[in-house]
Amino acid sequence: MKIETGDQVLIISPDEKTFLVKVSEDKNMGTHKGELKLGDCIGKSFGEKIYSNLEHPFLLLEPTLEDKMMKVKRHTQIIYPKDAAYMILKTGIQSGMRVIECGAGSGSLTMALANAVAPNGMVYTYDVREKHLENAKMNIENAGYSEYVEFKLGQAQEGFDQKDVDVVILDLPSPWDGIASAADALRGGGRIASLSPTYNQVEKCVENLEKNGFVYIETLELLLRYMQVSSGKTRPVDRMVSHTGFLTFGRKIIVEDFADEQFRQFKAPIDI
Amino acid sequence: MKIETGDQVLIISPDEKTFLVKVSEDKNMGTHKGELKLGDCIGKSFGEKIYSNLEHPFLLLEPTLEDKMMKVKRHTQIIYPKDAAYMILKTGIQSGMRVIECGAGSGSLTMALANAVAPNGMVYTYDVREKHLENAKMNIENAGYSEYVEFKLGQAQEGFDQKDVDVVILDLPSPWDGIASAADALRGGGRIASLSPTYNQVEKCVENLEKNGFVYIETLELLLRYMQVSSGKTRPVDRMVSHTGFLTFGRKIIVEDFADEQFRQFKAPIDI
Amino acid sequence: MKIETGDQVLIISPDEKTFLVKVSEDKNMGTHKGELKLGDCIGKSFGEKIYSNLEHPFLLLEPTLEDKMMKVKRHTQIIYPKDAAYMILKTGIQSGMRVIECGAGSGSLTMALANAVAPNGMVYTYDVREKHLENAKMNIENAGYSEYVEFKLGQAQEGFDQKDVDVVILDLPSPWDGIASAADALRGGGRIASLSPTYNQVEKCVENLEKNGFVYIETLELLLRYMQVSSGKTRPVDRMVSHTGFLTFGRKIIVEDFADEQFRQFKAPIDI
Amino acid sequence: MKIETGDQVLIISPDEKTFLVKVSEDKNMGTHKGELKLGDCIGKSFGEKIYSNLEHPFLLLEPTLEDKMMKVKRHTQIIYPKDAAYMILKTGIQSGMRVIECGAGSGSLTMALANAVAPNGMVYTYDVREKHLENAKMNIENAGYSEYVEFKLGQAQEGFDQKDVDVVILDLPSPWDGIASAADALRGGGRIASLSPTYNQVEKCVENLEKNGFVYIETLELLLRYMQVSSGKTRPVDRMVSHTGFLTFGRKIIVEDFADEQFRQFKAPIDI
Repeated sequence: MKIETGDQVLIISPDEKTFLVKVSEDKNMGTHKGELKLGDCIGKSFGEKIYSNLEHPFLLLEPTLEDKMMKVKRHTQIIYPKDAAYMILKTGIQSGMRVIECGAGSGSLTMALANAVAPNGMVYTYDVREKHLENAKMNIENAGYSEYVEFKLGQAQEGFDQKDVDVVILDLPSPWDGIASAADALRGGGRIASLSPTYNQVEKCVENLEKNGFVYIETLELLLRYMQVSSGKTRPVDRMVSHTGFLTFGRKIIVEDFADEQFRQFKAPIDI
Repeated sequence: MKIETGDQVLIISPDEKTFLVKVSEDKNMGTHKGELKLGDCIGKSFGEKIYSNLEHPFLLLEPTLEDKMMKVKRHTQIIYPKDAAYMILKTGIQSGMRVIECGAGSGSLTMALANAVAPNGMVYTYDVREKHLENAKMNIENAGYSEYVEFKLGQAQEGFDQKDVDVVILDLPSPWDGIASAADALRGGGRIASLSPTYNQVEKCVENLEKNGFVYIETLELLLRYMQVSSGKTRPVDRMVSHTGFLTFGRKIIVEDFADEQFRQFKAPIDI
Repeated sequence: MKIETGDQVLIISPDEKTFLVKVSEDKNMGTHKGELKLGDCIGKSFGEKIYSNLEHPFLLLEPTLEDKMMKVKRHTQIIYPKDAAYMILKTGIQSGMRVIECGAGSGSLTMALANAVAPNGMVYTYDVREKHLENAKMNIENAGYSEYVEFKLGQAQEGFDQKDVDVVILDLPSPWDGIASAADALRGGGRIASLSPTYNQVEKCVENLEKNGFVYIETLELLLRYMQVSSGKTRPVDRMVSHTGFLTFGRKIIVEDFADEQFRQFKAPIDI
Repeated sequence: MKIETGDQVLIISPDEKTFLVKVSEDKNMGTHKGELKLGDCIGKSFGEKIYSNLEHPFLLLEPTLEDKMMKVKRHTQIIYPKDAAYMILKTGIQSGMRVIECGAGSGSLTMALANAVAPNGMVYTYDVREKHLENAKMNIENAGYSEYVEFKLGQAQEGFDQKDVDVVILDLPSPWDGIASAADALRGGGRIASLSPTYNQVEKCVENLEKNGFVYIETLELLLRYMQVSSGKTRPVDRMVSHTGFLTFGRKIIVEDFADEQFRQFKAPIDI
């Protein structure tokens, strides 16, 4: 498997700078360690190296989903890989599923969703801001996931075009605006996930989930702590990102099957 | 989409007990709230309910990957969904890939890997303990992932049968035993991930990764904190699981392309 | 320094049970490892041992402030030592100061405050529940801090009897009820600290601090994670207490010195 | 209580800068918001304000122990207030006690210890680096704690001059160098605390404590997470200090009272 024109490559410098580039025969890239000819990548394998014109080695790596998510052109705060990964697993998204995302933001979560439903599923991603949608589209295209994503300009409150979807993901300042629409679009047993930075949003989101026929509601946050590993002096890294958002999950029931709000008693066990 | 014989269903009681069952027409299940006829599930949709013989309602939900992982029959400490999810995203596992897992344990991570490579990829899972392998096999079969998993009895030190795999995952008491074999099995740019509970294991693992041609080495841990959300009194839950293990990641280079250990300089940036 | 009748001793069994006792010549204490004669402690030094009638050794230790705080007779959720310690340091409580605490709870924080102001200061502790006040009084007496504590039956809203105190500590379900009274009782530059479990309490508390002439307002939480240290297999302990409460701090200004709410601009820097 | 010449004052600017100054009649201080005459503080109360020559208001606050600790002139990594506070409470340091600290570092922990033993106790602080000792001395003097601190040039391995002290605190790159000396200096039941950044240090420290007659050994770390509190949008702050060090605690026994290492069985309960 040799690198070809059009491939994405993660190039690392010897001093820990990383560059996510699309290889083309006649493009050069300036770095702090000299100029790289991107054409030099062609015919190399991932794991090999090229040199800058100042004779510094640069390593060629295959970009992972995380690399792609972290390197999107950002118009908004991106969703962190740890949160995206857990939302996907917890809502049970898998190959072949149909998933609604509202809103698209910079497309980093969209990318992770597309990766999860490929090669047979589809992600429908909504945003009210045309400019953001365009940026997300470009990011998704660069990452090679266009085939699995439909972009929709529109508001959560107006409802979604799809029915019987498997999962709805809300990344909205007012997630409660999208909950009735989500309930309408989801099939029975389908999952919802919402990401919000403040506890106030979480509280209002949960209240609305309970009113709209969602059960097994859980809210949590994930903290990621890096370790500095070095023989004889291993320790946690000094600083960390302390908060990227609270994640709220729920599962859609067939409301008609229940008297009043009888379904409210079906809570998630706190699993400790 | 109606529930049929042979389907897996997550049944929830009104007091937060959950049961992962395989539906069969003539099987009954005793609970603390009376007996359930599993045949009552047939023809229902997920999100509907059935009643026990004591007239208590039970809710029928579609099991997610997380539900399946947490409900395996355990012979060993299982890998937590948060860790599995992040390892998969970070190593870039996706549909169609070939992945080696060593060891299988109870099969909960195997399940997540199989789910990620489906419908075109394959997971090769090794374990030295035949009894564990049998248990993992049964768990994978129950979860419906047998098609994507090959089980291998064998030791990490003896090498893996596959070449040019995309990712190797090590879940071993002595992960360093599997690193040379992993380096041998991985294609250039392929990723490795290792999970270990102690600092000592992490330190020795990283030392061995550095010696075996891995770069961009990162170690981290994920903490999951549940929130108790309730209007006007929202707060973190009192207790939490504080430690499930440290995750270590690396990327395989083509060693011959480098003089001596020149490649050691290609470190991961600490991304804060 | 030999142990005498009336001294408090922390007795540890060989299997990690701890007992905080008051030594008296003719008192026996039953344990799962046999009966102890407390009179056997007399004349021993801390760090020595005594035997039960079943010949099991028990170790005699001097109780620390933490031991005393954790062993109070509890009528309420106690305040954890980590939180008490940080509140004391951060509000600058020291020997000779006058401090108001509202409410007394089970007296564990009271004890820490008394310890900090001794031998020349005084703690005035209020509670509306006579029964709790009695229990706290007994706990404080047992711990030997009665000399530094005055107990007051009364409500935060009715104001405190003291003026120009150095620090006020609020441990109330509705901390905002005590803020105007605290502002009234504190001297210029005096500090306030409040402990609350929920986000909602914190938010309302901060709003009220801002209205009542407090500046440099900070809210934070402390997490304590135990390590399991063992040669060659050191790791964080599996489970932890995840939440004991949010701590909020502020400093009292001389409001008349400021036009309107000009003082609101004097915020605490987030020190990272 | 009016501010006088020689008093320490914490001056805050309207944009969250803080200055810890010693008031003197004829000293000026330049700031980004204009020049302050420190003489203007004289006769004011804490909680009042002064103006810069550019008419910006600056608030006068009484420095707390935390302010003083964070504003020392640093020659070394300082010990964080949260860690100092907890070490003091957990080792039971109080007014009148005699405490050894080894090494002095920049004196921030020394200050907290002095504050805790005042007005009748004494802190003996050792350091091998004369320059650091001089700096610590100056910091302690500025903070007003000289009366309670003796500075000693010397190495942990050579033993301490004091006997029967209540508590020994080790802040050394090789804490095990000080453990035998600490065991020798402590009275029975006395406490030791050690602060180290790496798990390797912790492991070796605990091994040495066990060999030197310490029981009830505990290791832990404290994490401090700030909250951003604002009506309707309250959330944890984005970033945090993730690691300031592991704290290890132990209690001294009278070794002669035990056969061999019989005392090793007296472990601390993990209190969850």
